[in-house]
Amino acid sequence: MPDRELSATARTKHKRLRDQGRTDWAELFAVLRAGLVAHLAVPTEQGVMVIPTVYGFDDEHDYVHGSVASRSLAADMPEVTLTVTIVDGLVLARSVFEHGVNYRSLMIYAAPRIVDDPEEKLAGLRLVAEHIAPGQWDYVRRPSRKELAATRLLALSLAEASVKVRAGPPDDSDSPDATLGLWAGELPLETRWGSPVPDPALPDVIAPPAHISARAGNEVHPR
Amino acid sequence: MPDRELSATARTKHKRLRDQGRTDWAELFAVLRAGLVAHLAVPTEQGVMVIPTVYGFDDEHDYVHGSVASRSLAADMPEVTLTVTIVDGLVLARSVFEHGVNYRSLMIYAAPRIVDDPEEKLAGLRLVAEHIAPGQWDYVRRPSRKELAATRLLALSLAEASVKVRAGPPDDSDSPDATLGLWAGELPLETRWGSPVPDPALPDVIAPPAHISARAGNEVHPR
Repeated sequence: MPDRELSATARTKHKRLRDQGRTDWAELFAVLRAGLVAHLAVPTEQGVMVIPTVYGFDDEHDYVHGSVASRSLAADMPEVTLTVTIVDGLVLARSVFEHGVNYRSLMIYAAPRIVDDPEEKLAGLRLVAEHIAPGQWDYVRRPSRKELAATRLLALSLAEASVKVRAGPPDDSDSPDATLGLWAGELPLETRWGSPVPDPALPDVIAPPAHISARAGNEVHPR
Repeated sequence: MPDRELSATARTKHKRLRDQGRTDWAELFAVLRAGLVAHLAVPTEQGVMVIPTVYGFDDEHDYVHGSVASRSLAADMPEVTLTVTIVDGLVLARSVFEHGVNYRSLMIYAAPRIVDDPEEKLAGLRLVAEHIAPGQWDYVRRPSRKELAATRLLALSLAEASVKVRAGPPDDSDSPDATLGLWAGELPLETRWGSPVPDPALPDVIAPPAHISARAGNEVHPR
């Protein structure tokens, strides 16, 4: 991972709530690693579509995939915005106004590049698959030539990114509201993997592989 | 709740993966109720910003709020897109290609209306607060005139909305891949409220109110 700071262009520079802004490149990867699903905003002639999608990443790019038939991943895509948000809990303050959310988030602006090189495409798809379900790439059948042709892979540069994080108690403990005698604090939100549920069509003798069953009970968005 | 079908405009009509599309108006509210945080895509001169935000709703509108100082909620906002996504688990198929996600999601296109009427604004802010933390509006200090002036509330019509849901096992149990002898199924993702964490600045004698402590262990995104 490059030892550097995140971009500070006009649109990624933190203007408001600066204490929640992060500038270290490592924080971008912390959110990318901990996240599961991104939201991809794609301007189209009919308005901005926002698509939830899985993703993968390497040191320089985020990868998202979809069908070549998808309207939202058309070949002539303009710049897109990718957002990853992890909700860690509610910030319960002494006033409605000071209520908020503890979260980890990133926003990436990029002009997507369609990955056509077969080797690069396979590597990118592997990053996506291994990010959501580590171990599956080597366990299940890999993409056929036909499936690869039906899949569009987009590479988004991480060069222009913004990261924001909020954690901890509400900010009003030294305000006049602290004398109201009200409880205040955080209500954490815990996201864990459940136990694998076999496909009903599966013969009983086939057990889930260890890389799947070992996830049950684990945090989905570890810090 | 109006007994009607969801819109089917050019951009909300389901073109691909139609079996995941929903047309019943009630399904929109099911996702709105079960969701917690939305993503709001706002076209700006500098590109599309995508902002995670809490929300509330009534029979006809979704409400989101923010600071009047926020770049993303500027007074002259064009049409925006609001997305709510709930991730229910991973779909682990017998091939990489058939992998996917079980989810509930909605996408709303709307030209936001800035709510200026003080009574309507207070009612809208209450809907937002009560959606994320039911009971808090009546427990904590409500917004002052100054705080109301510093808050922008946007009303987004629900008239043009699209809902998609996927649930259940992978779709490849009757494909040739079923003979590979591989495990396949779902890996559920469980999101629950944790135990309330008191603000360290809080005197020990103040206990969390029942409407907060009773949430611990409850599902965040119930069906």
